[in-house]
Amino acid sequence: MRILIIGAAGMVGRRLAEKLLSDGKLGSERIETIHAFDVVEAPLAPANGIQIEAQAGDIADAKTVEGLIAQKPDVIFHLAAIVSGEAEVAFEKGYGINMDGTRHLLEAIRLRGENGGGSYRPRLVFTSSIAVFGAPFPDKIDDEFFRAPLTSYGTQKAIGELLLADYTRKGFIDGIGIRLPTIVVRPGKPNKAASGFFSGIIREPLAGQDAILPVSDDVRHWVASPDAAVGFLLHAGTMDLAQLGDRRSLTMPGLSVTIAEMMEALARVAGHDVVAHIKRRHDPQIAAIVDGWPRDFIARRAQEAGFTADRDFDSIIRAHIADEEARK
Amino acid sequence: MRILIIGAAGMVGRRLAEKLLSDGKLGSERIETIHAFDVVEAPLAPANGIQIEAQAGDIADAKTVEGLIAQKPDVIFHLAAIVSGEAEVAFEKGYGINMDGTRHLLEAIRLRGENGGGSYRPRLVFTSSIAVFGAPFPDKIDDEFFRAPLTSYGTQKAIGELLLADYTRKGFIDGIGIRLPTIVVRPGKPNKAASGFFSGIIREPLAGQDAILPVSDDVRHWVASPDAAVGFLLHAGTMDLAQLGDRRSLTMPGLSVTIAEMMEALARVAGHDVVAHIKRRHDPQIAAIVDGWPRDFIARRAQEAGFTADRDFDSIIRAHIADEEARK
Repeated sequence: MRILIIGAAGMVGRRLAEKLLSDGKLGSERIETIHAFDVVEAPLAPANGIQIEAQAGDIADAKTVEGLIAQKPDVIFHLAAIVSGEAEVAFEKGYGINMDGTRHLLEAIRLRGENGGGSYRPRLVFTSSIAVFGAPFPDKIDDEFFRAPLTSYGTQKAIGELLLADYTRKGFIDGIGIRLPTIVVRPGKPNKAASGFFSGIIREPLAGQDAILPVSDDVRHWVASPDAAVGFLLHAGTMDLAQLGDRRSLTMPGLSVTIAEMMEALARVAGHDVVAHIKRRHDPQIAAIVDGWPRDFIARRAQEAGFTADRDFDSIIRAHIADEEARK
Repeated sequence: MRILIIGAAGMVGRRLAEKLLSDGKLGSERIETIHAFDVVEAPLAPANGIQIEAQAGDIADAKTVEGLIAQKPDVIFHLAAIVSGEAEVAFEKGYGINMDGTRHLLEAIRLRGENGGGSYRPRLVFTSSIAVFGAPFPDKIDDEFFRAPLTSYGTQKAIGELLLADYTRKGFIDGIGIRLPTIVVRPGKPNKAASGFFSGIIREPLAGQDAILPVSDDVRHWVASPDAAVGFLLHAGTMDLAQLGDRRSLTMPGLSVTIAEMMEALARVAGHDVVAHIKRRHDPQIAAIVDGWPRDFIARRAQEAGFTADRDFDSIIRAHIADEEARK
């Protein structure tokens, strides 16, 4: 089978590609080619006889996206996005990539199917976000809570979900949207995302460095590990989607944890000396942003469909430590 | 002030234009110009010294829409749409008018504002639809029920609502989306809309003609009169929208009535002989479509914001009779 990953150079996309390369198959089907697309070429090493086609380009360009679909990939993972903070500042760029890019993809598939007599109907896994929800919301958001995003990014993801459902209903794709929790622990360097500290307060102390905690200990957030995210993608790429009916976007099961609980887990796994690297420095601006984010969900539909969350925050920390050791 | 009506030749658009012409003002402000746009020129007669600029064109064309905004209308009523049935069959045309057309409008306003130093921020009244909701739903749909449309038309309207909210939040427009109930009694000839019989079973009998009732008497639906629809538009065009916060699309208050209740009202207003013109002829296809439609709402936010429903179905029938007499 042929797999297209759009956003293959990002943290989750690359991890997904590496997992597919090491498995050699998706579900029970052998993978022949992985077409790895992003704004830069994804640095992937071939394995298990799988051919890698790494390509750099811009999905805001319809012709480029047409080219991605020309070889009719069987399964498409669409992870590419301008992230929340940047989409808020760069209005046109955000709409260009997050909305137009997604629509170009859907249109390229539809037109390819119609030109080929309607037989082309690939699996499309679209990564959405809990940013489709905006405050005020209940303490626990259920599967029927309505999307009222408060960012351009959340708006663009919500539009992607609507288009995905309609193109699926019309038979052009077999689509599923998965709303990822905040991914913790992100490896690598600190970034400027407002959510960055959720990873930073684990990652930096484990590396013997100080980390800033800009919010109070009772802040609650919805998180999943990088491995859980890859697990969601693989399950979404292989499961029977007919059971979902017309409602094709699901909130993925995460862990709802407070900062205090994260710190307690870090102390259990790595000791109090490590936790001492976390320095409290309240940042009212970040605190205000985080205050507008969802804290907890009832991800019943996803759980019933076989998506599984991390076991607990301790295991998220342990997995990160194991990853870092494997990297060395 | 300058008013732009997009969709001015349609039933509601034309009625709105005629009301504005006869009032001479919107709220307390004198109207100087009504720019009446549609796919055909709206046949409007000047009144109260108001200049009419009637123009025919296609909002799927970005340049055309730019031209509509060139003269910076103060209030824009956007009623243009490919209706539900046609958008379902003509996929590209539906997306072209209902999604791209709306986005062209928002973009034209944004770019006009940025070129003018950000001072242009018009009131935009967008007519949405209860088609943004899809079955299964509760008996009464509240303001926080989620949008899961089951038609391309509903998808396009839901996307319009999301864009409207984001462009408002970013300060490019002062926008409000109003979800109109099914308009009953529509004047004129029967049309092929699946909802057409809701008007037909009142309009035709009152004109001494037989009308087909394709569904059972216990079918419940959400309706408003043409006058109520114009009232919603005028209130949306003048009210202070800041009170709505970030959630800018509202379900308009309608009447939830069954076919049996409609027929009882017709008997009260016009007599049993008139009701005898209604011929029951079950149409399983129409019955199935109608079965997927919302039946009742709790339109609390709209009511709190001052939007008012028709008093009862009797008064809807009486208003239609008065309209028909005025027309002669």
